[in-house]
Parts: sequence; C-alpha cells; structure tokens
Amino acid sequence: MYGELKEECGIFGIYNQKNAPNWIYLGLYALQHRGQEGAGIVCSDGQVLSAHRGVGLVNDVFPPHKLARVKGYIGIGHVRYSTFGASNLRNVQPFLMSYFQGPIALCHNGNLVNGELLKYQLEQKGAIFQSTSDSEVMIHLIARSKEHQFVDAVIDALKKVKGAFSILTMNNKELVAVRDPFGFRPLWIGKKGKAIVFASETCALDLVGAKWVREVEPGEVVHICGNEVNSYFPFKEVVPKQCIFEFIYVARPDSVIFGKSVDQVRKQLGRELAKIAPVDADFVMAVPDSSNPAALGYAHESGLPFDMGFIRNHYVGRTFIEPDPKMRDFGVKIKLNPSKDTVKGKRIVLVDDSIVRGTTARKIIRMLKRCKVKEIHYRVASPPIINSCYYGIDTPNREKLIAYTMSKECRNREEIIEKIRRYLGVDTLAYLTIPAMLKATGCDPKHFCTACFDNNYPTPIPSNFTIPDKENSAYQHDLTLDER
Amino acid sequence: MYGELKEECGIFGIYNQKNAPNWIYLGLYALQHRGQEGAGIVCSDGQVLSAHRGVGLVNDVFPPHKLARVKGYIGIGHVRYSTFGASNLRNVQPFLMSYFQGPIALCHNGNLVNGELLKYQLEQKGAIFQSTSDSEVMIHLIARSKEHQFVDAVIDALKKVKGAFSILTMNNKELVAVRDPFGFRPLWIGKKGKAIVFASETCALDLVGAKWVREVEPGEVVHICGNEVNSYFPFKEVVPKQCIFEFIYVARPDSVIFGKSVDQVRKQLGRELAKIAPVDADFVMAVPDSSNPAALGYAHESGLPFDMGFIRNHYVGRTFIEPDPKMRDFGVKIKLNPSKDTVKGKRIVLVDDSIVRGTTARKIIRMLKRCKVKEIHYRVASPPIINSCYYGIDTPNREKLIAYTMSKECRNREEIIEKIRRYLGVDTLAYLTIPAMLKATGCDPKHFCTACFDNNYPTPIPSNFTIPDKENSAYQHDLTLDER
Amino acid sequence: MYGELKEECGIFGIYNQKNAPNWIYLGLYALQHRGQEGAGIVCSDGQVLSAHRGVGLVNDVFPPHKLARVKGYIGIGHVRYSTFGASNLRNVQPFLMSYFQGPIALCHNGNLVNGELLKYQLEQKGAIFQSTSDSEVMIHLIARSKEHQFVDAVIDALKKVKGAFSILTMNNKELVAVRDPFGFRPLWIGKKGKAIVFASETCALDLVGAKWVREVEPGEVVHICGNEVNSYFPFKEVVPKQCIFEFIYVARPDSVIFGKSVDQVRKQLGRELAKIAPVDADFVMAVPDSSNPAALGYAHESGLPFDMGFIRNHYVGRTFIEPDPKMRDFGVKIKLNPSKDTVKGKRIVLVDDSIVRGTTARKIIRMLKRCKVKEIHYRVASPPIINSCYYGIDTPNREKLIAYTMSKECRNREEIIEKIRRYLGVDTLAYLTIPAMLKATGCDPKHFCTACFDNNYPTPIPSNFTIPDKENSAYQHDLTLDER
Amino acid sequence: MYGELKEECGIFGIYNQKNAPNWIYLGLYALQHRGQEGAGIVCSDGQVLSAHRGVGLVNDVFPPHKLARVKGYIGIGHVRYSTFGASNLRNVQPFLMSYFQGPIALCHNGNLVNGELLKYQLEQKGAIFQSTSDSEVMIHLIARSKEHQFVDAVIDALKKVKGAFSILTMNNKELVAVRDPFGFRPLWIGKKGKAIVFASETCALDLVGAKWVREVEPGEVVHICGNEVNSYFPFKEVVPKQCIFEFIYVARPDSVIFGKSVDQVRKQLGRELAKIAPVDADFVMAVPDSSNPAALGYAHESGLPFDMGFIRNHYVGRTFIEPDPKMRDFGVKIKLNPSKDTVKGKRIVLVDDSIVRGTTARKIIRMLKRCKVKEIHYRVASPPIINSCYYGIDTPNREKLIAYTMSKECRNREEIIEKIRRYLGVDTLAYLTIPAMLKATGCDPKHFCTACFDNNYPTPIPSNFTIPDKENSAYQHDLTLDER
Repeated sequence: MYGELKEECGIFGIYNQKNAPNWIYLGLYALQHRGQEGAGIVCSDGQVLSAHRGVGLVNDVFPPHKLARVKGYIGIGHVRYSTFGASNLRNVQPFLMSYFQGPIALCHNGNLVNGELLKYQLEQKGAIFQSTSDSEVMIHLIARSKEHQFVDAVIDALKKVKGAFSILTMNNKELVAVRDPFGFRPLWIGKKGKAIVFASETCALDLVGAKWVREVEPGEVVHICGNEVNSYFPFKEVVPKQCIFEFIYVARPDSVIFGKSVDQVRKQLGRELAKIAPVDADFVMAVPDSSNPAALGYAHESGLPFDMGFIRNHYVGRTFIEPDPKMRDFGVKIKLNPSKDTVKGKRIVLVDDSIVRGTTARKIIRMLKRCKVKEIHYRVASPPIINSCYYGIDTPNREKLIAYTMSKECRNREEIIEKIRRYLGVDTLAYLTIPAMLKATGCDPKHFCTACFDNNYPTPIPSNFTIPDKENSAYQHDLTLDER
Repeated sequence: MYGELKEECGIFGIYNQKNAPNWIYLGLYALQHRGQEGAGIVCSDGQVLSAHRGVGLVNDVFPPHKLARVKGYIGIGHVRYSTFGASNLRNVQPFLMSYFQGPIALCHNGNLVNGELLKYQLEQKGAIFQSTSDSEVMIHLIARSKEHQFVDAVIDALKKVKGAFSILTMNNKELVAVRDPFGFRPLWIGKKGKAIVFASETCALDLVGAKWVREVEPGEVVHICGNEVNSYFPFKEVVPKQCIFEFIYVARPDSVIFGKSVDQVRKQLGRELAKIAPVDADFVMAVPDSSNPAALGYAHESGLPFDMGFIRNHYVGRTFIEPDPKMRDFGVKIKLNPSKDTVKGKRIVLVDDSIVRGTTARKIIRMLKRCKVKEIHYRVASPPIINSCYYGIDTPNREKLIAYTMSKECRNREEIIEKIRRYLGVDTLAYLTIPAMLKATGCDPKHFCTACFDNNYPTPIPSNFTIPDKENSAYQHDLTLDER
Repeated sequence: MYGELKEECGIFGIYNQKNAPNWIYLGLYALQHRGQEGAGIVCSDGQVLSAHRGVGLVNDVFPPHKLARVKGYIGIGHVRYSTFGASNLRNVQPFLMSYFQGPIALCHNGNLVNGELLKYQLEQKGAIFQSTSDSEVMIHLIARSKEHQFVDAVIDALKKVKGAFSILTMNNKELVAVRDPFGFRPLWIGKKGKAIVFASETCALDLVGAKWVREVEPGEVVHICGNEVNSYFPFKEVVPKQCIFEFIYVARPDSVIFGKSVDQVRKQLGRELAKIAPVDADFVMAVPDSSNPAALGYAHESGLPFDMGFIRNHYVGRTFIEPDPKMRDFGVKIKLNPSKDTVKGKRIVLVDDSIVRGTTARKIIRMLKRCKVKEIHYRVASPPIINSCYYGIDTPNREKLIAYTMSKECRNREEIIEKIRRYLGVDTLAYLTIPAMLKATGCDPKHFCTACFDNNYPTPIPSNFTIPDKENSAYQHDLTLDER
Repeated sequence: MYGELKEECGIFGIYNQKNAPNWIYLGLYALQHRGQEGAGIVCSDGQVLSAHRGVGLVNDVFPPHKLARVKGYIGIGHVRYSTFGASNLRNVQPFLMSYFQGPIALCHNGNLVNGELLKYQLEQKGAIFQSTSDSEVMIHLIARSKEHQFVDAVIDALKKVKGAFSILTMNNKELVAVRDPFGFRPLWIGKKGKAIVFASETCALDLVGAKWVREVEPGEVVHICGNEVNSYFPFKEVVPKQCIFEFIYVARPDSVIFGKSVDQVRKQLGRELAKIAPVDADFVMAVPDSSNPAALGYAHESGLPFDMGFIRNHYVGRTFIEPDPKMRDFGVKIKLNPSKDTVKGKRIVLVDDSIVRGTTARKIIRMLKRCKVKEIHYRVASPPIINSCYYGIDTPNREKLIAYTMSKECRNREEIIEKIRRYLGVDTLAYLTIPAMLKATGCDPKHFCTACFDNNYPTPIPSNFTIPDKENSAYQHDLTLDER
C-alpha cells in the first residue's frame, strides 16, 4: 500500500532568466527519464504567478500555445513518475497555492517518511487537502510558520519533515532550493549568464547551456532574492546517505551526480561484475538501454566482444492496444526484437542493471531462447533487491520483489540466486555484491543509502505509525479536470 | 474589482439514485442558462468519491467517456457563469477536498459578503488556498469545526458566513443542502422514485423526471443520510430577501421559483409596463429571447399584436472571429438579424427585460433603424439598475451601469430616462417602477432584495472592509491544468 | 435508399475580397441552418488554391488557426446537412481536384436525378471516385469537356446533368455560379465594395455587409474573371420550378428568396390556414422555432392572442447521452419544456410548419397533454407530404411519411387527416391546401415545384433507372481522415 | 524539386485474419521507422470497405476508438515518410476509391519514374486527381483497364508504370501484392495460422507472430482470393536492382531483406571499413542508433573496444520549440548529449552509416570536440552519395549532397574526401568503397541499384521529360481535412 505513494521525479528551477518558461521546458525535457506521467511549470514575472500542469510527457503537456500561458523570469518545473490512475491531475506538481503571505509554489523530488503523520496532525488542526502529495503537506507547514521571511518559513517547515526531499519553492520574488540532510536525491546549481539554474541532473544544465557550478550539498538551503544568493545549513548535520539506485538505474548516464559520472560508475559496476563473475562466452550484450554502460564495462574488463542482440523500437508510445490477450510476452515484444543472426547458437553474457520483479527479465530470456541461443549467462550489475524504498524510488511492495520472495524459503545467498536462476531459465546467474557495488562508485561507502539491498534505513521507517482506518477514505477520491 | 468575483451559478444534487452522474448531467443541462463557463460533478458510491470538472458547456465537459469517470449513487453538480480568463480551472466547482473526517465536496450558488474577510482570517491562522472561491472558504470552516457530525460541522461553519448561499455539500455517505436565511437564491427539493433531488430551478426537476416537492426554505438545512431526511433551521430568522432579478432575467421561464411561475411573473411585468407606459403602435416585439414573456404580457394587456422582428441565429457559439474590426455592431449582428419586411415603416413597441450597460440595446436599436422603422418605443420591464449586486448576480461595477452614470448629472428620474432615451436613440423610453415590479410578482414585496434598483442591501456591504494590499497578490496567479 | 443520398446545403462565394476566408466563414455562419454536419472553404490567391474541410458546425470546423490555413481573395464555401455516419469526411464539400487545366473546386446545393447514371457511365469509361457526391460527377464532366475555357467547360458539363443544382465552382483565377434551369434552389448575388458575393440566402449577404443585387436567375451562368462579370443562359429554357419547401421550412425567415420575404410568406401561410381552419381557442402557439411566423400569421388573422407555451433550451448540442432508455420522449424533452402555467386548462391552437413522420409531433402533443391542457387544435401550415424529394430536401423514404402511409388505407383526404388526428391525439387537425399554400406565396403558382405534396415531379424521376447490384458495393465504404 | 515527390514508406497487408485492423496496426507499428508522417488502414469484411487515415505516428492516428472504425478480415496499411506540409492529408495512403468494378484500395512503397508523365496523359483523357501521389495514378490505370478480373486489371495497369513499386491493393474480396521487376523495395510474405501476411520487413512479421515464408520476388504478382493463392510473373524479366540503401540505413537491423540479415550486413560493412581504413585509437563509437551495427563490426574487426560516447534522449518528439535562435546545434543537442568522461582526451573512431548533407555530422563532431576529445577518426560505412534517388529514398536534390557539391571543384576522390574532412573538422575521414560495400552484402553485386553512389540508374531518369509549366499549378493546392 505504502508503495503507491512513492515516486521518482525531476525538478528544474531558474532565476533571473528572460523567457524562463522556455528554458524550464527544455530542462524538464532533459529530465524526462525521471518522470513520464505528468509535468508542470510555475513562473513569476515579479508580481503575478502563472502556471500550467498536465498529465503526459513534457512535449504533450506543453505545446507552444500552452507553454505561452506561463510567463516570467523566475520559475520552477517538475516531471512526475507515478500518478494514481492515468488521468489524475491532483498530484501533478508544482503546487501553486496562496497563504497569508501571498502566492507560493513548490515541487519536490523524494518522499517523506512522516508525510502521513504530518498530514494527520495538520488535518486534526483543521487543514484541508486537495491532493495526497507530500508537497501539499510542506506548503501547509510553511503557511503555518510564524516566521515572516519566506526562507525562514521554509526552513521552519522543513525542520518538521523527515525523509528524502530535494525541493524548489518560490513566491513572486524569491526562489529557495533545499536538499535534505541525508542528500538522498541529487540537486545541482548551474549558471547561465546572469541566471541561476537548479536541476536534478547535469544533463538538464547541458541542454539549457548552463555551466555546472556545484551540487547543492546535503542539508543546504539556497535562497535567491534579486541579486543576492545566500546559503544556509539550518538542519542538524548527519552522515550523507545518497541513493545508490540513482547510480544504478535512475540518472541519465551523461549526468554527473554525487560527484561522479553516472556513465563511469555504471561501467565500473560492470567491470566489478566481470571480476566477480567471469564466464567464457562469445560476447557480452545488454538489456537495452539502461544496462548498456554496465555491459560495456563487463566487456571491457573481460575482454569479450560487446554486441547488440536486441533491436529497440524507438516509437513505442505510452498506450498500446493488445490485440490478442493470448499473445504472450507482448509488452516486451513491442519494445524489443532479437537480432536473430547475431544471437543464434551463441554463448551470451546478458548484463542487466538490476532485477526487481523478475517478470520482464524472464520474458526477455524467453525471447532470446526462441532464437536458439546456446547459453545465457545472466549478470546483474547490482545486488539482489530485498526491500522497498521509502525515499522516492518507485519499488513495489517487497512481496513482489523476486529476491525477497525467493529468500523466504532459502538459507543463504547461493540458494536464493539458484532459485532465481531456475525461475529465469538461464545457464548461470550472478549478482554484484554490496561491497563491490560501493567500491565501484569510488566514493566513501558510508555516504550511500543501500536500504533496498541491506535493510539499513537511515531513518525510522513508517511502519511504526498506523494511520486510523477512517482516515484512509480521505484519499479515496479521484478528481479529473479538463480544459478546453 | 469586487464585481469580478461575482457569479451566477446553478446547482443540482441527487441522493440514492443509481447512475447518479447521468442524472446530474441532465440536471446541469437544464440549468445551463445559469452558467456556461464551467461544469463539474462529484459522486460517491458510498465509499469513494469521484469527480470530473472542466471549462465549457456541460456537453463539452462531459462527453460519454468522461462522464463515465464519475461513479456513484450520491452526487452534486455545478454550472458556473464566470471564470477569470478562458481556461482557468481553479474555481470550477464542486470542490473536492479531504480533511480529518475524510473527503468532502461542496458547490454553491451565491456570493458571500464576508468571504474576503474570512479568507484573510483563515490565512492568518495558516490556511492555504488553491482558489479564489467562497466555496473553499466554506470547506475550510467546516474542516475547522469542532463538531463531530458532518451536518453539525456544516451548520457551525455556515453560521460564520454572511451573504447569499444556496449550497450542496456531501461526504461519502451524506448530502446536505442549505439555503441562506435571506433565501437570496432559489433551491428546490424533488423526488424521483426513491431518490431525493435538489436543483436551483424546477426545469431541472422536469428534465430528470422528478416530482416537485417544495422549495428549500430560507435558512433551512436539509440533511440526508441513508433513508433519513432531516430538516433544521439553525440560523437566526430574518425577513426573506429573495433576488428579484431571478424573476426578471436569470431563471428559465418554465421554472417556478419563490412560489411563482417565472413565465407568469414576466408576463405580469409586461402587463404592468403596458399599464404604466402605454403607447400607440403597430405591434409589440421583444429583444429575443429573454424578453419574450414580458413582450407577450405587454401585447396582451395593450391589445396590440405581438410580432417577431428579429431572427436569432441558433448556432452562435462561444467564440467568434471578428474578421474586420471596422465592422460595427458585429457582436449583436451575428446573433440577431431584423426581419426587414416585418419592421419596415412600422411603429414598434420594443420590450426589453432590463438595461445594464445600454451598449447592446443601442446596437439593437441601430439595426432596427437601418431597416427604416418608423418609430421605436422602448419599454423596459424592470426599473433602472443603479447598483452592483453583492449576492451573486454578475452585474458590472456601477460605473458601467448606464442608469447610474446618467444619474450623476441629473436631478430626477425623468431627466435620467430622457438622457438614456437620447443615448439609445428611441422615440420614447419607459421603465417599470419598483412598486409595479413588486406588485407583478404577486408576493409580499418585503420578501425581495431590490438592492440593485434601490440601494437597500439586506446585509452590510463589503466596502467597509479593506483588504491589505499585500494580500491582493495572493490572487494574482493563474493556473491551468490539462489532462490527456 | 435513394433518400440517403439527398441533402440540403448552403453555399457562399466571394470574388475580389481581401481575406476572403474570413468573409466566407461569416457567410457560412449565417447559412448554418442549411447544414450542420460539415463545412468547407476553398480559396485562391490567384495562383494557389488552399482548402480546409471538416465534420461539424462552422464554428467547430474553423477555429482561428484552421481558418488561417486558407488564403486568398477568391473563394467558395459550403455547409452540408447530411453525411453517412457521423465522421465521414469524403462527401464534405467544396471538392478540390486537379485536372488537365489545373486545380478546380466545386460545391453545390441540390441533387441530381441522373447523378447515379452519370457516375455509372463515367465509371464505365474508367473514372474513379472518392465520394458518393454529385459534385464529383460534375468535376469529372468538366474535366472531360473538350472546351478550353473554364466557363465553357462548366457549361458543357452542366448540359449533361439533370435535377437541382445551385453551383459555385472556381479555378485559381475564375469563379462561376450556376442555377439550374428550373431554379429549384435559391442563389443570390450581392456586392460588397468591389467584391462580388454569392449566397444561398440574403441573410448571409446581410451578415457580411453585402448589398443585395439580385437573384441568379434559373438557368443563368454568372462568370467572373478579373474585373469582368458575364452572364449566360446556355440551357434550354423551361418554366421555373422553385422549391416551395424553401418557403415552408428551409430558409431563414429574415431571408428573401424567389423574390419574397420568407417571413412574410410564412405569416401568410398562417393567415391562409386561419381562414381555412378557424377554431375557437384561448391562444395560438407555435412548435418553436420554425413555426413561429406561421403561428403569428394565424394569430393575427384569427384575432386570437399569440403566446409561447414551450421554452427552448438554447444549449442543446449535437450529441446527447440518454441516461435511461426507458425514459420516453426524451429527444424532444431535452429541447423543449412546456411552460405549465401558460398552457394548463387552456384551449390551444398549436401551429406547425409541416408534418413529416409525425413522431415528433406526437411527442410534443403528449408533453402538452401531461400539463393538462384542455384542447389542442393542431394546425399545419402546409399540405400533407406524400412523396420524397429528389431535388435536395432530406425527406425520408415515403414509407416513413405519415401522410403517405395513412393514405394507403383511406379513400379521401378527410379520412387520412382523421387517421393522423387520432394518431397524434389532438382534438382537431387541419392542413393547408395546395392552392392556399401557393396563393400565400404571392407568386405565379406554376413557378413552384410541389412534388412532395402532389407527385408532379418537374423531371423524370430516377426510379426509371436501375443500377446493377454489383455496383452498389462501390458505395459501401466509409473513410475517415484525421489530422493532428 | 523532383525530390519533393520522393518518399520512403512501409506497407503491411493481411488476408483471412479475424480483427484484421488490430494486426495491421501492430504491423505498422513495427514498420514505423519507414515513415513517421502519416498512417492509414483499409479493411474489408467481405462486403464493405472501411478506412481510417491520419497525419502522425501510428499510435496517434489510431487510438482505440478510431481503430475500431475499421472492420474486416482483409486489409492493408501504410506508413508514410514525407508529406507536403505538416497537415496535408491528401497523400496519406492507402487510397480508397470506387470505379466501375466497385471499391478499390491501394498503397505502395517506392516511386514511379513515369508517374508525372502518366498523370499528364491521364489528365489529357479527362482524369481528375485529388492527390499528387503515384498511387492515384495506378488506381486510374486499373480503372481504365479493359480486363474484367481484378488481378488482370492490376497487371494491365502496372505494365504501364516504370520505377520502384512494392504494392498492396485490394477490393472487397481480393488482395494483390506486387513487387516491381527490379525489386527495388523489399516485400515479404508470411503466414499467421490460416492468414496470409505481407510486410515490407520481417520485423513486422515477428511482431504479429507470423512465420516468415519468403520474399515476394522481383516482378512477382501474388493474388489471394478466398482460399486460393496464385503467383504470376507477368512483367518482362530484368536483372534485379535491389536498393542497397535499404541495407545501409532504411531497414530495421532485426529484419531480413533481400535474403540477408540487415544487422549482419551492416556489421560486415563496418568490418570492410575497418579493413580498408584502419586507425590506431582508444575506442570505436557510433553515431547512434542507426550506425551501431557498423560501429560494432568495425570494433570487432579492428580489435578496438566499442564504447558509447553519446547518450540519446528517448523522449524526443516530433515538434520542438527552439527557445533561442542563437543557440547553435540545438536540433542535435536535444537528441544527443556526449558522455563527457567517456570521450574526454580520447582518440575516437566515430562510425557513421552515411553522410548526406554533412550538416548534422558537423554538429555532432563539434559537440564531441567541445568535450576535449583528442582525435576523431570519422569512418563512413558507405561510399560518398553523389546522386538523388528516383526510386523512393528521400534524398534531397543533389545540390545539397555534400559529396556532390565538393566534387565540383575536385579532380579525384582523394581531394573530395579531403575537402569534406576539412569541412567536418576531423583528424581523418574514410568512406567505404563501392566494391567493398557490395562485397559486404554477400549477394551478387549486379543485383543492387547503386545509382546514388555511381550514377548507374537502372531506368531512364525523369529529367528527359519536361512537364508543361501550366501543369504545375495543378499541384499547387493544399487541402486539410478535419474530423470531430
């Protein structure tokens, strides 16, 4: 159940830039991989805030005539991964509200672990909610702060929240960027002429032509007002716990986050995997496209040739009619087709970045086997996932994680992996180990959250808190909105 | 400025009806004349609330596949007159929120005179707002009530508001209908089999095939839960002040409101007008279509024949390109065309229900004169409008009311009317008097609000209250939302 | 079956007018009552022809950005009544084709009686067709003419067709307007500054601000090229047979066609009806809105007061969900609601312009009777319709015409009318007679086609010609087209 | 100019398959890379043909409710590369017409060299055209054939056309597939249960789950009627001239065409390139994605590692707002971003499948150089393109081909390549030779058309034929169509 509230997202902000909406649009475009379900932009011309939000890809939400509705030189934008139902607009960010100080907009990437509790407490005090999003909780907290300055109210509010949050929030004149003390999610500062830019990843800075300045540090609050940029560290300091899964899967390979090139880290993950789990084979191939760097790293380390055994259909859209329910493996088939002559009769090292449920991996393996490959050696460039994430990665309930379910009846790692190997139907299967994964990052291993692999959550987890049953009905509504 | 916040609306609710959304859709269809800018429906299946809202006519907002998104047997709907900008969805009702008791939906017809003040006070206590609507103020008040029962919380909240409100509000199991103590706006109860129906006007009951039961009384609260229907009168009793303008212009002639047939009252207005301001002429015609009943009444009383000198284009849509800005009177021309042979050379009594700005009347008169009519005797079936409405009729700022602006330099009624006559360019001009208007209703004259004609506002008016300047920026944002 | 191919349409053309598409748009707007299913505009800038067509009302087909696709100073436009299936674009006019002389566009109002035969003959010679429209037949004939001049080729082609046609056709420099020798359908010439305008009715000339010049005469060909306007009468002269049904129902009352004001003719039809079929009653009312003039005429002649017993919902759209199939008379109910207090206990003369199937009339009568009217005296301002039209009016197959089906078992007019009276459930029923109808026009009675009333078709009817069965499949396809 | 009429397309047909439209939809989905501008499907249920066409991707043209408009068990579909202007629907295929035998639908992949001449001749005989497409020419020819049987008429017609054509055409009961005698374009036959399937490439057979049977042979006509499948070779036999560019760029790598795996041929092109133009470097990378196989082949042959220096944005849509015209290289930047740490300081072999204009290549090289690569060795896996294609590949006019323009002032191949190298700004540049290219296919080198590389057109080229100037105006019209 809790998993439904999780999300992966991308955020982008800009201050002091003419035609800010156009640049935010571009920035969101570059962050599209972080969220394909919804997008929104809010801007201020110094007086008035304007906004547009919608369900779908950035391109669909913002055709020129709709982008033109948003105006100003200060602005923030958001792409969103997961909404409840295809057309639910309530949770699409940034949120735009008014409170006693005037208008406020806010968007965030991450997930609060005490969001439900805060919402419960706020409702007890008479607060009303239009969404189920943590963002609205944060705006309520800001609106209830006694602080007079915007940045002080934001800090005051964020001291009450726990969990993962990279936030951009603004009023008509100020923009504030915050990264939580653990620094779970990435957040960059860039500079584009006189404008200050914020983005989840550097690939967005690249596209708008901004120089990379530095990452917002864990626990840092950056406040911009006019020509003044100030930095604060108002939260209690803790050891950073950056999300290792950003390196494994989420971020785009051409980005640098947590001080490292994502592409290089992924290649190193592949290299470590090749050291730990070498195998004699004809070539190395990837489950495209996210596993490409790891597969290249494996190939380079092992000396085996790299090849491409799958061809992607680049035109796969978001909706697809399945003409015949009896047709098996269709969801994968529409996206990938094996290149038969490449794989036939071959011994293949198939590199994947991670296995979550295992169902897609099994379908992919079946497709290859139908092409009469000789051997498949499945290599996973991360350890087995045994836990849900409470900090913003959209992992399902752990009962749906193959490594967790298989672990219930097994005594040790070897048994689990053997069970998964049989389920997948491959000749050999190997995962990366946690130490090898952390080594591959080239960073201090203590600075990462690896809870999904080892159960070590940096914060208390929300299962301690039980929400009254009646309360749940509060979320049981679905609102759709239409505009002509 | 304040005028911008005003609105005329229609509301419809149903309880205990299978496929409630379909019937609400029909009800809103019949109430379309009360609001063409937006529409929304919220329903409950007893557990979950679902909703859809949009900008445009009922037909456009609810194509079958969108209507199908709303489900349940309890529901409320709303048509809205005025939104700020063509595509602003924030203020489209019903509002759907959650608070500590669970989900709540609310829609209203009318306007609060202390809405701004309440909003200011709520914001001082940390409330955040997504809209500029009074409805959201009311939901905040309900959410902050200490009462445990839904109906008690609604009553508690409504005791704090002042002004005009016919309200429908619901949670997942209960529906509450309220009419303010003055009874400014109409609200009917009907019965359709086992279902209870609420509607602004009887024409909506007719279309859904519901029997007319009675009007919700001024100050009455009707609460439905399961099979129980209870009625309360929790507010301090006052002399009713029903809106006379509902009879003059707003309501559909086939409706009965405030105990009278709108059609009959309008005809009587025309009869009174004929008594007060008779004239020798060839025939009586109306400014179509709202003035038809008054013109018929005038004709019947005067013994003059009734004729139709204008032909309406029934296909006029909401948007229209003016191909040449130099073309005068175009807005009217697209809707009405004189039937030249009918009017040419004739002495005409032209009956209008009311004159607001006078600009449209002047254009219509010019069109007739170009057809070489001999005489035009303009007869207005209501008194001169000299004040804005604060209770929900969308009259403009009084500086734009022709009777008000002309009155500034005039000593008496005669002079004002003569000035307007010259502005319009007609041979004679006569208005109905306030006593004759009240007499035409056949009701107790004390039971009507006639503030727009005589400045006697039943409640203190909001000009006493000045909102801090900074506050205004809170409304200076515009949010549009899109759904695929 | 043949009835399916019939249509009523409106056409509009303009020559030598800057921004021609905007003015054609306006002209079509005024002709919207002649066809609500589709609209199209073709224009030439002297070199290139551009076009846009679509399914729906003029307003829906031509939002500003789509109207902007069409450019030029010469142009023609069309509104269309009937298409086969809601979204069939193939038959929407004007047609735009190319042939050996270059591009050609053509639209027409009317129906050819030898269209099927010509199509068959053309196909035998290798012609291919994209539509089932007579317009395409005419373009084929023009393309196959040996004449070198455009106007000569048009005349050459039209000499081969038989039936009703008011046509506008153009190439990149010339515009030709033609009215068939019988003059079945109206066609006007107007002048707007230096521009020449053509329109089916004068109401379109009014809206674009054009002066009425004269009607194109039956059998006349008007050719415009540059500053030259020439008129030809190339067809064999016959006695005109103008469509009497244009007066009864089709044309807008504010138009003048066939030399007479439609409004005045309709009133005279009502007056004649009152003379033939007087009755003692409380008042006269119309089946709104097309019967209004006839009802006014009846009232004026009879001395009875005119009243409005039905209120129209002006927002009825083209699609409507019937929420419950058991609900009777719903299609009418959504459009009309009786004003109960007006009709209750009254003896009513209910005037209708015509009865086709009788089903709608029966529903309307039932609605009134439920309001407890005392007596209904149904008066029809035209004779009984006993035949289908082959010249462009969309009457159904005669087996669906109530007067035809009732006539099968009856010996005389009285018996037929009595049977219809019982079917409708009214107290008395009277139709106008053919002589009285013709007298009401004030024109030479021999100059009208009254085939639908008396079976006297001015041309041989197509039942003489049987199309080979195999051929039929040629029309059995449905093509829809989409544009992003 | 002539180049504008060229096109690349994909076709798919199915016979005897329940829910044929769904499967055609899937087939077109798999062929989307062959045409992204428009799509259409025509089906027959044995009696009636239904169709839907639109501008855009398959997914956009065929949402479920529009796909549902097409019905039947016989059908053909088409994806189209190039239309004249974004919204021009006239040329979207399949065309659906009727002629004396009944309805006919036709779609084709390829380009006729005598299409203009045939159109001119047909127009001289009175034919009218709605499009500028060769398909319409072919339907005219079929309609004018004296043959009684559908397949005979198709053969009769196709004997008159010259050029490239893979065609699917159908009436309500029969389907005919034809490949021109030279076999320029691919066309496959597959079998799916009892259904016969036709597709441009095997990747479409794979997706619908059809078995590969064989390719339609050059000059073969396959006729299906009921359970009978017949094959004819009615055309004069010639040496096949299959399009080598299908191997180089057009076809999907997972397809087999002309008897060979596209992926394997591309890898072999890369291998040959490595043999001809080896270079010492750190790694080999591709201009993604079409050059991947050639780059892999180069890497495997050379023994250099393969790496990925560019990251693709998979969400790039068809339209994109350029926020600042001063931003250089934007069109490429939005699609590709270098992985900086991968390329920095490296000596790179950059493999491209072909160079057409050279402008994009130059932008890509600049992007890499800004990342401070040490050396770029550009390797092109095909020879220099010096001529336009007249057989269906959308190459521009040769004046825009970099190899042609550079050749004008050069004496030999070396000089040309050196000039291009300087233009691109790379350290070394090498192209594949024609013999090496042909060798890489593993087929008889005489069986390919290599006209774009060596000027040896298999047919007379259309420059011999000059179309009369007046004629051109025939194409100068643009028609858009809309459906609600």
